[in-house]
Amino acid sequence: MISKERLQKHLDTLAAIGKREDGFYRLAFTDDDWQGRDYLIGEMKKAGLSIRVDAFGNVIARREGTDASADAPAVLYGSHADSVPGGGNFDGIVGTLCALEVMTSLQEDGFANELPLEQILFMCEESSRFGAATLGSRAMRDELTIDDLHRLKDKQGVTLYEALKSRDLRPDELPSAVYTAPAKAFLEVHIEQGKVLEAKNIPLGLVTGIAAPTRFRVHIDGSADHSGATPMGLRSDGACFAAEVILAVEKIASEYGKDNDFPAVVGTVGIVNVTPNVMNVIPGKVTLGIDIRSISAEAKADAVRRIREFVEEVSKRRGIPYSVEPVSDEKPAVLSEAAVNLLADTAAEVLPEAVTLRMPSGAGHDAMHWAEYCPTGMIFIPCRDGISHNGAEHAEIDDITDACRLLEAAVKKLSCKDVTL
Amino acid sequence: MISKERLQKHLDTLAAIGKREDGFYRLAFTDDDWQGRDYLIGEMKKAGLSIRVDAFGNVIARREGTDASADAPAVLYGSHADSVPGGGNFDGIVGTLCALEVMTSLQEDGFANELPLEQILFMCEESSRFGAATLGSRAMRDELTIDDLHRLKDKQGVTLYEALKSRDLRPDELPSAVYTAPAKAFLEVHIEQGKVLEAKNIPLGLVTGIAAPTRFRVHIDGSADHSGATPMGLRSDGACFAAEVILAVEKIASEYGKDNDFPAVVGTVGIVNVTPNVMNVIPGKVTLGIDIRSISAEAKADAVRRIREFVEEVSKRRGIPYSVEPVSDEKPAVLSEAAVNLLADTAAEVLPEAVTLRMPSGAGHDAMHWAEYCPTGMIFIPCRDGISHNGAEHAEIDDITDACRLLEAAVKKLSCKDVTL
Repeated sequence: MISKERLQKHLDTLAAIGKREDGFYRLAFTDDDWQGRDYLIGEMKKAGLSIRVDAFGNVIARREGTDASADAPAVLYGSHADSVPGGGNFDGIVGTLCALEVMTSLQEDGFANELPLEQILFMCEESSRFGAATLGSRAMRDELTIDDLHRLKDKQGVTLYEALKSRDLRPDELPSAVYTAPAKAFLEVHIEQGKVLEAKNIPLGLVTGIAAPTRFRVHIDGSADHSGATPMGLRSDGACFAAEVILAVEKIASEYGKDNDFPAVVGTVGIVNVTPNVMNVIPGKVTLGIDIRSISAEAKADAVRRIREFVEEVSKRRGIPYSVEPVSDEKPAVLSEAAVNLLADTAAEVLPEAVTLRMPSGAGHDAMHWAEYCPTGMIFIPCRDGISHNGAEHAEIDDITDACRLLEAAVKKLSCKDVTL
Repeated sequence: MISKERLQKHLDTLAAIGKREDGFYRLAFTDDDWQGRDYLIGEMKKAGLSIRVDAFGNVIARREGTDASADAPAVLYGSHADSVPGGGNFDGIVGTLCALEVMTSLQEDGFANELPLEQILFMCEESSRFGAATLGSRAMRDELTIDDLHRLKDKQGVTLYEALKSRDLRPDELPSAVYTAPAKAFLEVHIEQGKVLEAKNIPLGLVTGIAAPTRFRVHIDGSADHSGATPMGLRSDGACFAAEVILAVEKIASEYGKDNDFPAVVGTVGIVNVTPNVMNVIPGKVTLGIDIRSISAEAKADAVRRIREFVEEVSKRRGIPYSVEPVSDEKPAVLSEAAVNLLADTAAEVLPEAVTLRMPSGAGHDAMHWAEYCPTGMIFIPCRDGISHNGAEHAEIDDITDACRLLEAAVKKLSCKDVTL
């Protein structure tokens, strides 16, 4: 049986690791991250799981099935345990502890799963240390190269290669980390990191797709003139150009069709750097950092195109030159409709009073890398005020426990050979 | 006779003082400022002037008139010689050298001026060191207190009081610096620090008024949420609020009636500070620094009122709170129409081929403090690309020389008792 008390005990234990005044500092491959990982591996062993650590450090903890054939597909689930600097104790941890609790509960109950089950503890999901996210999943899905390990560096100049070496991992054997075994499904529990579930007072979200960002910078080359001595008609004000773009990003993103209450596109100008940024000089050079996301690759590409056309039009109208610097362009992940349906049906059975909501994920997760490998599903739980990546991050233990019960019930179904997705 | 060569020689001499790679560093009361001042005092003495230094360090260099009565009003002219950090060799210097050259030329020609003439070399016109501008003029016009001298500090924590002491000046006798003698007029030559004269290819501007800024900060209290996980409809984006304000400042300032090709109001959002200013977080707190100027106090107050009403409306519509922090609210100076007319008539006589343009000054100058004391006029000359407060600042020696000729001819007229303003 899923135990709320055991979940709370693990949460409390992890809450003592890497904690500072403003939040948690379990950055990937640091001592605090490793202390948390060691604790989790110990608990996985107590749950009777066999532990395999791949070349990148990802932990694959396996419960064998009654079908011992080599081609029996495994049911995969898990999340990460690293944090951003000053992060919370729920992002990643909730999914990891739910997976662990399912394993512990199944062992306690002597559950006879037909297919093998694997909890995966992914390394380095957060981009904070090496500037790139979900690196453990990328290693397992052949989306990371040894060259990348040498190229990616933290702020102290330590390469990812060196960080792996420092943990006695095997960066030179990176290709061996690619996951090739048959898999029936991948499931991940995670806090929403948004306000939707809380606003609607719904405890469980079923993720239909994971949006991926297209990011670019717009460098506006205005003219920094005297704010008193330059008449309005003789200005090339970079901030006015920028303001038009900020409002256009908001307007264009809002215009896409709504899917289940969620706009198909979100657009954000998160970075605004104005120079010289003083009271008595008209802004000259201005840089904007723009982030456009969608679970629809087509809608996202269309929004980006319209924004870039608008920037070009403003430049011509104002006579101010600009340049666009691409930053990233990632592909959204469509999650398995069959997996979502199975989760919805299972929720109705085991948590009859809990309402569920099908919703996209605006944030990226390890799950997005598995959507093309096997049917993939995600369960979201609310987090207070939508706050995440912050010491104030909080999720209710009752919501965590419900998500864990749903995960267990879904895993039990999926472990039967005759349940298909 | 006004000598272009002598003007150039003085310019070249000063160009060797306080020069660094990116411009001049003759900050008020520093060694480099004092070296320039000493050179200028020496040249004033060579021009036969009697030197008086007031308690603040302002230099009043006097050429007596043939009318020796104590109540004979003096004709005043001059400018400053300090610079901003990384400034140019023309801001202030041009007006100072024109005044000096007039004195030298009058001596050379043995001109018999009826009324006394005084060149004033103002101290500390630039706000760069002590955060407040035209301090020498303020001292002479009773707009500065000993308390201010203790309160105003540079970045190293040196008070203005201490800076005056370090130059053997007499901060405790500040009230004695107040200028109380009868004055017939004040004239100042200065570079435009804008692009208007250059754009119109006009060598001489006659200033009708000096705009003064009203400055305030708007603190927008948006909500810094995840840029992927927050649908457009659940956002409180501080940058979008800010963008509306930036465009409203531009629009409102542009709507005021045009006076001689110059809009009556200029409005600038020079400061835009966005937090947390990263790609994947919606901007939360945003601060804008807004500067509204006009030579019309009424137009300025009206524009400020309309902008503040607009901010309030955006706040209500977007549901985002804000606060306004006043920074300063200065009174525009109206220059003497009689002085402008005299300068225009004189220009037509001595520089018949030079077109003049009546124009407001968007930047502040020493002259603005004299407008209520005596009829005050200013002569602007073009500066290349409108660039000022920058090592690239440049004015043509021919334009400087023309302005100097106009100044001399005007001074000669004003020195006659029967020429009235």
